[in-house]
Amino acid sequence: MSATPTRVGILMGSASDWPIMKAAHDLLDDLGVAHEVRVLSAHRTPDESAAYAGGAIDRGLEVIIAGAGGAAHLAGILAAHTTLPIIGVPVANGPLNGFDALLATVQMPPGIPVATVGISGSVNAALLAVQIMAGADKSLREKLEDYREKMKTKVAAMDESLQADL
Amino acid sequence: MSATPTRVGILMGSASDWPIMKAAHDLLDDLGVAHEVRVLSAHRTPDESAAYAGGAIDRGLEVIIAGAGGAAHLAGILAAHTTLPIIGVPVANGPLNGFDALLATVQMPPGIPVATVGISGSVNAALLAVQIMAGADKSLREKLEDYREKMKTKVAAMDESLQADL
Amino acid sequence: MSATPTRVGILMGSASDWPIMKAAHDLLDDLGVAHEVRVLSAHRTPDESAAYAGGAIDRGLEVIIAGAGGAAHLAGILAAHTTLPIIGVPVANGPLNGFDALLATVQMPPGIPVATVGISGSVNAALLAVQIMAGADKSLREKLEDYREKMKTKVAAMDESLQADL
Amino acid sequence: MSATPTRVGILMGSASDWPIMKAAHDLLDDLGVAHEVRVLSAHRTPDESAAYAGGAIDRGLEVIIAGAGGAAHLAGILAAHTTLPIIGVPVANGPLNGFDALLATVQMPPGIPVATVGISGSVNAALLAVQIMAGADKSLREKLEDYREKMKTKVAAMDESLQADL
Amino acid sequence: MSATPTRVGILMGSASDWPIMKAAHDLLDDLGVAHEVRVLSAHRTPDESAAYAGGAIDRGLEVIIAGAGGAAHLAGILAAHTTLPIIGVPVANGPLNGFDALLATVQMPPGIPVATVGISGSVNAALLAVQIMAGADKSLREKLEDYREKMKTKVAAMDESLQADL
Amino acid sequence: MSATPTRVGILMGSASDWPIMKAAHDLLDDLGVAHEVRVLSAHRTPDESAAYAGGAIDRGLEVIIAGAGGAAHLAGILAAHTTLPIIGVPVANGPLNGFDALLATVQMPPGIPVATVGISGSVNAALLAVQIMAGADKSLREKLEDYREKMKTKVAAMDESLQADL
Amino acid sequence: MSATPTRVGILMGSASDWPIMKAAHDLLDDLGVAHEVRVLSAHRTPDESAAYAGGAIDRGLEVIIAGAGGAAHLAGILAAHTTLPIIGVPVANGPLNGFDALLATVQMPPGIPVATVGISGSVNAALLAVQIMAGADKSLREKLEDYREKMKTKVAAMDESLQADL
Amino acid sequence: MSATPTRVGILMGSASDWPIMKAAHDLLDDLGVAHEVRVLSAHRTPDESAAYAGGAIDRGLEVIIAGAGGAAHLAGILAAHTTLPIIGVPVANGPLNGFDALLATVQMPPGIPVATVGISGSVNAALLAVQIMAGADKSLREKLEDYREKMKTKVAAMDESLQADL
Repeated sequence: MSATPTRVGILMGSASDWPIMKAAHDLLDDLGVAHEVRVLSAHRTPDESAAYAGGAIDRGLEVIIAGAGGAAHLAGILAAHTTLPIIGVPVANGPLNGFDALLATVQMPPGIPVATVGISGSVNAALLAVQIMAGADKSLREKLEDYREKMKTKVAAMDESLQADL
Repeated sequence: MSATPTRVGILMGSASDWPIMKAAHDLLDDLGVAHEVRVLSAHRTPDESAAYAGGAIDRGLEVIIAGAGGAAHLAGILAAHTTLPIIGVPVANGPLNGFDALLATVQMPPGIPVATVGISGSVNAALLAVQIMAGADKSLREKLEDYREKMKTKVAAMDESLQADL
Repeated sequence: MSATPTRVGILMGSASDWPIMKAAHDLLDDLGVAHEVRVLSAHRTPDESAAYAGGAIDRGLEVIIAGAGGAAHLAGILAAHTTLPIIGVPVANGPLNGFDALLATVQMPPGIPVATVGISGSVNAALLAVQIMAGADKSLREKLEDYREKMKTKVAAMDESLQADL
Repeated sequence: MSATPTRVGILMGSASDWPIMKAAHDLLDDLGVAHEVRVLSAHRTPDESAAYAGGAIDRGLEVIIAGAGGAAHLAGILAAHTTLPIIGVPVANGPLNGFDALLATVQMPPGIPVATVGISGSVNAALLAVQIMAGADKSLREKLEDYREKMKTKVAAMDESLQADL
Repeated sequence: MSATPTRVGILMGSASDWPIMKAAHDLLDDLGVAHEVRVLSAHRTPDESAAYAGGAIDRGLEVIIAGAGGAAHLAGILAAHTTLPIIGVPVANGPLNGFDALLATVQMPPGIPVATVGISGSVNAALLAVQIMAGADKSLREKLEDYREKMKTKVAAMDESLQADL
Repeated sequence: MSATPTRVGILMGSASDWPIMKAAHDLLDDLGVAHEVRVLSAHRTPDESAAYAGGAIDRGLEVIIAGAGGAAHLAGILAAHTTLPIIGVPVANGPLNGFDALLATVQMPPGIPVATVGISGSVNAALLAVQIMAGADKSLREKLEDYREKMKTKVAAMDESLQADL
Repeated sequence: MSATPTRVGILMGSASDWPIMKAAHDLLDDLGVAHEVRVLSAHRTPDESAAYAGGAIDRGLEVIIAGAGGAAHLAGILAAHTTLPIIGVPVANGPLNGFDALLATVQMPPGIPVATVGISGSVNAALLAVQIMAGADKSLREKLEDYREKMKTKVAAMDESLQADL
Repeated sequence: MSATPTRVGILMGSASDWPIMKAAHDLLDDLGVAHEVRVLSAHRTPDESAAYAGGAIDRGLEVIIAGAGGAAHLAGILAAHTTLPIIGVPVANGPLNGFDALLATVQMPPGIPVATVGISGSVNAALLAVQIMAGADKSLREKLEDYREKMKTKVAAMDESLQADL
């Protein structure tokens, strides 16, 4: 992805989560944040998941984003193996449409937090990762401010366009 | 607990789950099933939890019962590390009263099942463990049939008593 | 299905549940576990359902899998008539999408457990059945370990493939 | 209870449901409707429950009221064994407070209805039983009309009293 | 519909409920029960709804079936104006898919019951109506028993067919 | 209550709702808005409820506040009989704690709105009533602005007090 | 839209809400109520949203309708900046289908009410706005009464049509 | 609180949230992280809340923790006014016990994330804040690792103690 050191890991339990998680990848690409994308499962490759989190600080990662559906344990398991901030994305799939994943991600016991975003909210996961890294990286702060400005402009354009159409 | 080989492990994420999980211990005691009780956390002692499940078959365990509340990951994490049957007990605690634990326990992804019982249903977890072991242990089958008979007798007694009181 | 003695019964309340329950049948076929598939309703053929469960031990069955939707009573009713392990599959259908079936299956009263898997989780029901039988059947244990390895390989392949595509 | 033929059966899965179900008994007593109260469990005494429902028409029963909590199967199982109207009372107990019992009672499959009242609504179950019987019993219709009048009077009295207190 | 006196009224709040409610009409037709179908709204034609219920006994109606979605008030309002049994059908429509209608129909206050069936369960509403009327009409009892037999036969046929297809 | 013409009606289905609804009464008293308090039930006194709403405009009422729990129909029924703004207060009582009342109040069909406030939010119901009347009554606007100022002051005082205590 | 002074503002957080909110616009057009439509976001253009609400009274607005989905904050934020009545429309979008928006809109803290209508209930939001303005505008009262009459006529027509089709 | 520059702001909408939010304050105190505690309301002091967030970066704050119940808008509103990471704590209060606050906090629209922790999870909010700051502050990383070790020790002690008591 990038020759610069990887700063963010985007993990998901299955390639079937990729259509949701891709938006996080795209946003980090747009903001020029070096990252990697991995398929690692809390249940099917638990040791690899644990090892990934356990080695993340030494590899220089700053934030991990983890997307999973159903009894979504991936973010929690990663959080158990590192003190890096873990951002959990409850992925909407299956009959409960992500509601199960939301509760399984956010309701962590005292001591091991997961920073949870909305159901299938992978864009916000990426933005939150950048907000976290911006504390020590002024260039990211500027990019975030730019991003905000563009959103404002976009809302204003929608506002004008809608009124013009009436 | 017992000089005979341990057959069942009763695990919970915190000693605060003991008031709920004790009923499983009591029932196995009543039915004379050798077992052990452990506090192991999916999030605070993840390696110990993984090691426990990973070594369970070699130690001769036949079933593991795991109780946890909130974003209850314990049963799922154990299931990821063994092919023994894992029975999950969603423990009712906190503001959602075990509803979160139910979804976090039962909604496992394809490939890694957790045999889930009702919220705080530790008695049924123990009975299910015995039902599983009874496949290869006729004496347990008889104990289960006895237990059923006693339940019927108890219902009949309640039935008579209630009618007598009217 | 098989000339060897039937070990698992896959039951469902209606043929309309077959598209969901077929995955359990397929998995047992893949693992070479002799089983039978039956349409029996807790409400429309209650006596046949009770008789099936009541005679299951004598017929040599080891586990029963029961799928039902809505006010899913089938697993519970079977459990009331045998001490064999009953695995309940809440089937997603109707306006509540299996949420009703989940609660109606898992929230059993003390004394009569149902080993509940996730909504429409028939694959996991079959795996759980095999895990239960593997306690007295080493060949099944090996098949389960193989199955796990294949899952790991599959996750690793997805992982590689996704990274290659970026 | 009554020397006249029993017309209504009030059933519950456990004597622990009696504090809720007693209100149905009291109301039928008040309206002079001969009835019986039984503890019968869909899961612990399934054959007795089935036999009760199966013989109800021959015994002259006109309506059966069934209260149960959790994965409340009692009403549904009774309904499977008779074409008498079955009134289901989802009993509020346990961590989900009757919400599970509501879904497990009301979401019956096509063909086997249960007339469900509100959670712990045993008074309304008794009234509904009387409304059903009133179709062929003018004296009950009058009693129901009286009961309605008394309710109106009571509301009017509350209305006056509240205004007087301001 | 029928020259014989109307015995059942099928009401709905909007013609948009007809695709759901038609099944009740069809079943009553099949069983030869004289009935009428009306569009009456608790909110848009409240006086007509009240008048309908208020005059139902005098017109000889025996049961009223009421289907409504959302904040489903129709069944409750009818129940407030008559002591006939009112059967409520929560109709699945809108973003909550009938879950709102279920609670708005079933959770009636003490004194005014509504016999609630499952979400969009209009077939069961019709069957329940017939079960209620069968108390004083032996011919309906026989029809109900026939209907049950046919359901059993149908389940048995599905059972055979499914096994034959494996 | 007041010699000036009554402007607001506070209605509730039962005197048991008074502890919740009293806060609306107190606030209107504090702001000097003439109002009346009535116990009227959608189900037990439906005609009186309908008549109250039907005559409200002629009596000079400007807003009606209606509190009810469970299958809360009162606000909807009032709304069906007047074009005055109806403010619905879902009252928290019973096993579902007002969640049923919320859905039964807010999910009104197109054509008949109910202005719903939060569960047991009777203070906000009164404030909303005043906000509605303030459109044509400048003195009420001023009182509302004063009320807002006092809230700000109170928050600021809490802010100071909490910091002082640390 | 209209040369007469704008009386109602219809706001939404994104142009993607327009398909839902357009119905409010259409109804106000039909009833001849001068209004404006704006895209303003509580999160992306918070200052503009606050300014809109803060200046609304001075601009002569009488009611503001605000539609938003997800963690719907728009109505609440507007309500925090004005004492005009704010009508909140929880917009159904995303995996929870407006259920999140309903709770985020209606459960306002004491002091700052939002008049909430049903999920995606923009028609009712417009009607409620007119009902509020009709207190000081007799012509609107008449239009509302006409609208009611037309609804009655429409229900009656559906009633006739359905019966004719049977 | 501290002579060193304030790094974290702990905000809450009302002093009534303090019993929940105090745990965040205590943990930051224990870890020696300079912070401040403020009562600021999204609805009652919206301008102060916006100003607080808008000025936070200039004041040197690194993270803001915001606790609120009901239609919890505080975290979202703060997030709208800064690109600092905002951690949302849904506070359990009122009839829905924090479930409403969870959805109102976590389901933010694309562009404005809130890092949400579990209901009333203020300890985890503080830990997450420290995890975020530890990216540029090695001493915090060490404190977090120590904290983890202490948790492991505590779980091990519970494990031993429970076994000793059996």
